[in-house]
Amino acid sequence: MEPLGGWKRTHTCGELNRSHVNQLVTLMGWIHRRRDHGGLIFVDLRDRYGITQIIFDSQIDSKTYERARQLRNEFVVAIKGYVRQRPAAMINPNRSTGEIEIVTHEIKILNEAITTPFPIVDQVDATEENRLKYRYLDLRRPEMQANLILRHKLYQLARNYFTKNSFVEIETPYLMKSTPEGARDYLVPSRNYKGRFYALPQSPQTYKQLLMVAGFDRYFQIVRCFRDEDLRSDRQPEFTQIDIEMSFVEPEDIYAVMEGFMKEVFQEFFQENLKTPIPRLTFAEAQQRFGSDKPDLRFGMEIATVTELVKKTEFKVFRQAAENHQIICGICLKNGAGYSRKRMDELNSYILETGGKGLVQIKVSENGWDSSLSKFFSPTEILALNQAMQASPGDLLLLVADESEKAYTLMGSLRLKLAREENLIDKDKHQLLWIVDFPLLEFSPEENRYVSRHHPFTSPMDDDIPQLAEKPAEVRAKAYDLVLDGYEIAGGSIRIHSRELQKEIFKVLQIDAQEAEQKFGFLMDAFQYGAPPHGGIAFGFDRLAMLLAGRTSLRDVIAFPKTTSALSLMDNAPTTVSPVQLKELGLILEKSVADQE
Amino acid sequence: MEPLGGWKRTHTCGELNRSHVNQLVTLMGWIHRRRDHGGLIFVDLRDRYGITQIIFDSQIDSKTYERARQLRNEFVVAIKGYVRQRPAAMINPNRSTGEIEIVTHEIKILNEAITTPFPIVDQVDATEENRLKYRYLDLRRPEMQANLILRHKLYQLARNYFTKNSFVEIETPYLMKSTPEGARDYLVPSRNYKGRFYALPQSPQTYKQLLMVAGFDRYFQIVRCFRDEDLRSDRQPEFTQIDIEMSFVEPEDIYAVMEGFMKEVFQEFFQENLKTPIPRLTFAEAQQRFGSDKPDLRFGMEIATVTELVKKTEFKVFRQAAENHQIICGICLKNGAGYSRKRMDELNSYILETGGKGLVQIKVSENGWDSSLSKFFSPTEILALNQAMQASPGDLLLLVADESEKAYTLMGSLRLKLAREENLIDKDKHQLLWIVDFPLLEFSPEENRYVSRHHPFTSPMDDDIPQLAEKPAEVRAKAYDLVLDGYEIAGGSIRIHSRELQKEIFKVLQIDAQEAEQKFGFLMDAFQYGAPPHGGIAFGFDRLAMLLAGRTSLRDVIAFPKTTSALSLMDNAPTTVSPVQLKELGLILEKSVADQE
Repeated sequence: MEPLGGWKRTHTCGELNRSHVNQLVTLMGWIHRRRDHGGLIFVDLRDRYGITQIIFDSQIDSKTYERARQLRNEFVVAIKGYVRQRPAAMINPNRSTGEIEIVTHEIKILNEAITTPFPIVDQVDATEENRLKYRYLDLRRPEMQANLILRHKLYQLARNYFTKNSFVEIETPYLMKSTPEGARDYLVPSRNYKGRFYALPQSPQTYKQLLMVAGFDRYFQIVRCFRDEDLRSDRQPEFTQIDIEMSFVEPEDIYAVMEGFMKEVFQEFFQENLKTPIPRLTFAEAQQRFGSDKPDLRFGMEIATVTELVKKTEFKVFRQAAENHQIICGICLKNGAGYSRKRMDELNSYILETGGKGLVQIKVSENGWDSSLSKFFSPTEILALNQAMQASPGDLLLLVADESEKAYTLMGSLRLKLAREENLIDKDKHQLLWIVDFPLLEFSPEENRYVSRHHPFTSPMDDDIPQLAEKPAEVRAKAYDLVLDGYEIAGGSIRIHSRELQKEIFKVLQIDAQEAEQKFGFLMDAFQYGAPPHGGIAFGFDRLAMLLAGRTSLRDVIAFPKTTSALSLMDNAPTTVSPVQLKELGLILEKSVADQE
Repeated sequence: MEPLGGWKRTHTCGELNRSHVNQLVTLMGWIHRRRDHGGLIFVDLRDRYGITQIIFDSQIDSKTYERARQLRNEFVVAIKGYVRQRPAAMINPNRSTGEIEIVTHEIKILNEAITTPFPIVDQVDATEENRLKYRYLDLRRPEMQANLILRHKLYQLARNYFTKNSFVEIETPYLMKSTPEGARDYLVPSRNYKGRFYALPQSPQTYKQLLMVAGFDRYFQIVRCFRDEDLRSDRQPEFTQIDIEMSFVEPEDIYAVMEGFMKEVFQEFFQENLKTPIPRLTFAEAQQRFGSDKPDLRFGMEIATVTELVKKTEFKVFRQAAENHQIICGICLKNGAGYSRKRMDELNSYILETGGKGLVQIKVSENGWDSSLSKFFSPTEILALNQAMQASPGDLLLLVADESEKAYTLMGSLRLKLAREENLIDKDKHQLLWIVDFPLLEFSPEENRYVSRHHPFTSPMDDDIPQLAEKPAEVRAKAYDLVLDGYEIAGGSIRIHSRELQKEIFKVLQIDAQEAEQKFGFLMDAFQYGAPPHGGIAFGFDRLAMLLAGRTSLRDVIAFPKTTSALSLMDNAPTTVSPVQLKELGLILEKSVADQE
């Protein structure tokens, strides 16, 4: 191990080419690969910028050559040498430095390395567990480096875009008051006030609204949020969002600014000129046509609702469903008539597992239907159904009969499954859309009350306000989601800025005045002093980065992620702490817990 | 209260001028001031961009005029009207919009406001407590808005600078493992693993070092850090730093990049062309010449050490001090000989309160000293002292005799006090310097061991490594601080990247192998797999913003600060939480604590 001793890098391992031939250069990096040809050693030297081939020739410098024989993978070295053009046959067109190599005259071994638990290559055969435990090695893989560099670019693009659009970046506290969705708050015990707790923000929602009351007009922040959720495969206990709020706006104003942002994102990361305005679907329409509030529009296979066409059919399943105010809906899989019995059984099982009562599957043939069910349907019904579902001979019709919401959700889920399995999605295509006109509330059977779909600060549509008391389920919200390729990448709303309307909403939500005062008193107070109309949106930064990087796991775009059970495999956090630390906080572990430790 | 109903702002309240005359415009904002001239109402309409005068004329539109009579301060309104040039006599040259006014034709009252607890003006006569409680109103004051907008600019400048210098912005976790300085960690109890805790980072130190091991080469992040410190007036429990780390570097490389950054900062915020390289002082020299490791160089009054000159004087205080290996040092206050007895007593008291044994004060006259002490000094001694302290007739000499470190610290503190009180500091001047060659360790009498001055990952100077075991106090560190106008704005070091050296340091610090393994095992492990030489620095973002804004309180540049006792006066965090929440975490409050709540 040697010190740098004043050596300075002249170039990175990604930048040398023919124009540098004969220059004396100093490179520093990791030994990526070493081949010993007896008297001649070839080394691939790697840094984050690329790989350069360096050569140790015993004829040229025997001492340096001897030192090179000690090199092993992942040793850290600094070398000085001359850039040499490679013979034509040796040029590597896949590498930016593929035209040249360095003839090494001097080497410093800056650090050694023991054998890594997995090789530093993109197609790595390592367990997820090992990748997380040795994250600092996993992050050496060029693919992971590219993901984080993409993420870096997305930060800068976002901040530059919002800055040039007069937004002010403002940091909000991480140590805040425990919020209404308190059950999922991470708590932080206070030492100065024993027995009291801060909470880590699930979002800076109240702060950004207060910033609007303060007159900041356009605010943004790329900010960490925390949610102590029950385990789900694609969630992280801490996540990043681009948090945005604007004053004096209606939904159209928000759309316009966000579409400008997405235009730049598409240009930078997909090299695509995004056409605006981005299409919009109401929540109800998205549900009926795609069975999802975040439909993937990169393929068709829309859901057709055929209740009216078959409500008098002799096929009892459909007729009785219609009689019970259920619906019949389905999708048409083009050229699916070739499916085997086994495949069709699989699909049926999928529907049963997903909570459905069964899947009706009909093969469409030249002469009508190639199905035992055809006897229950009149020719008119068959024709009408084929037409409604745009079926041609060779297609497969897939239908369910159920309660409206469930039927659409089942079909939406099947639609996506089939598209993935049948490779119907063009991965090079990207499709954005707005989902609008969300319901404001949904009924929670567990709590036996209405709860906010978004959060309790969401403004109802002006026209629907009179129905708040009588028909709360029918009140629509000034809320909107932005969907990319079947993922919700952003969601937001126009907020309530009237103290009276906010109180009315709390009443509908059965949050009593005292509770409201205790939890949101400061926000309600603020509304008394001249709160402007305002609204905003938040982008899921991790998910957006994941989609832009073409990945399917959030962990691939987060430097140091946790497992789905919120564990850090690298440093083993969370860990026990000393009794002194607990004592200082006025806390005791429950006996059963203490016994386990 | 009326909805926007499709109205759109055409301009802000800061942008209209003569070129807009006769245009129909729509403005939105807050009523800043209203003057009713009977038939004619003048209103100053305010938003974050400025103030525009709008006029309601009963002759022009009596209905709108009548509505305007209802307006009160801080009401939120939208108005439509025509831009009109003001008569020459009415032009307000202090306002960007001072040449024009708006003749209002239509108004919407978007929200009303009750009387604010303090007026929304810069020279506000509000208590700090009220300013924090009603922070959303305090932030409406143009001065506070300017502070946060300056902060916004500093974020962008920093990120753009580091981005263009090939740094990668990477987010590191906020939920991490409790660290060595654990006593000041904020803890976060885990729900999935009851009895275990995450800690909020005091800095992302270990992560950034791991990113260097991962090959990221140049990393930066503007990141929140947390420290549960005992109360100090100018600290916040959460603070922001620009965190930076680089690979393959020595201190000079760090200096160069940071000086480039400071050049841009000076240009943007001081409109000054910063000359580089920034001057450097060793820690020892800063101590001896300025009695501080963060000297303010905007004024002179350097400390002179005069022990050798007076060690044989008849003045017992000095002679005995010299005999006891203490030092005698002092400063010369130009033209200070006019000080009254009372003022001199004050200064003496200050030294006593600060821990000194007394202040020797000597007025310099044409004929020597105008002091009862002159009889104890020979004319040669008097001359030598005057020369060493660059004293002229009319000056005041201020000296102490004490242990070296204490004597310098006393003088450094007195130097600063006098400069402030005598207005010797030119506030329009700004002075940066590097402090280098810090000692690696300092002895902690409480713990009876050496502790790291910076942190245990700081690299010793190569030449000093052999002395680690025998003379640890003399080992210098590859550490550096950047000082602006007497404030430390950044500090950093070259890190240890050798597992063996790191182990040796732990030994000197008396951190035993097991403890080291438990706390830093993952970092030590990482060092085995090819850790490059690396180092970094972190800027105190809040403090830098404070200095650039010309403020003296961190709270003036933080949107939602806490009090010195870490309390949020706006939402009263920290608060008690529900028993259910505690139960889920496996925690019980100590009885004495629970009884209080």
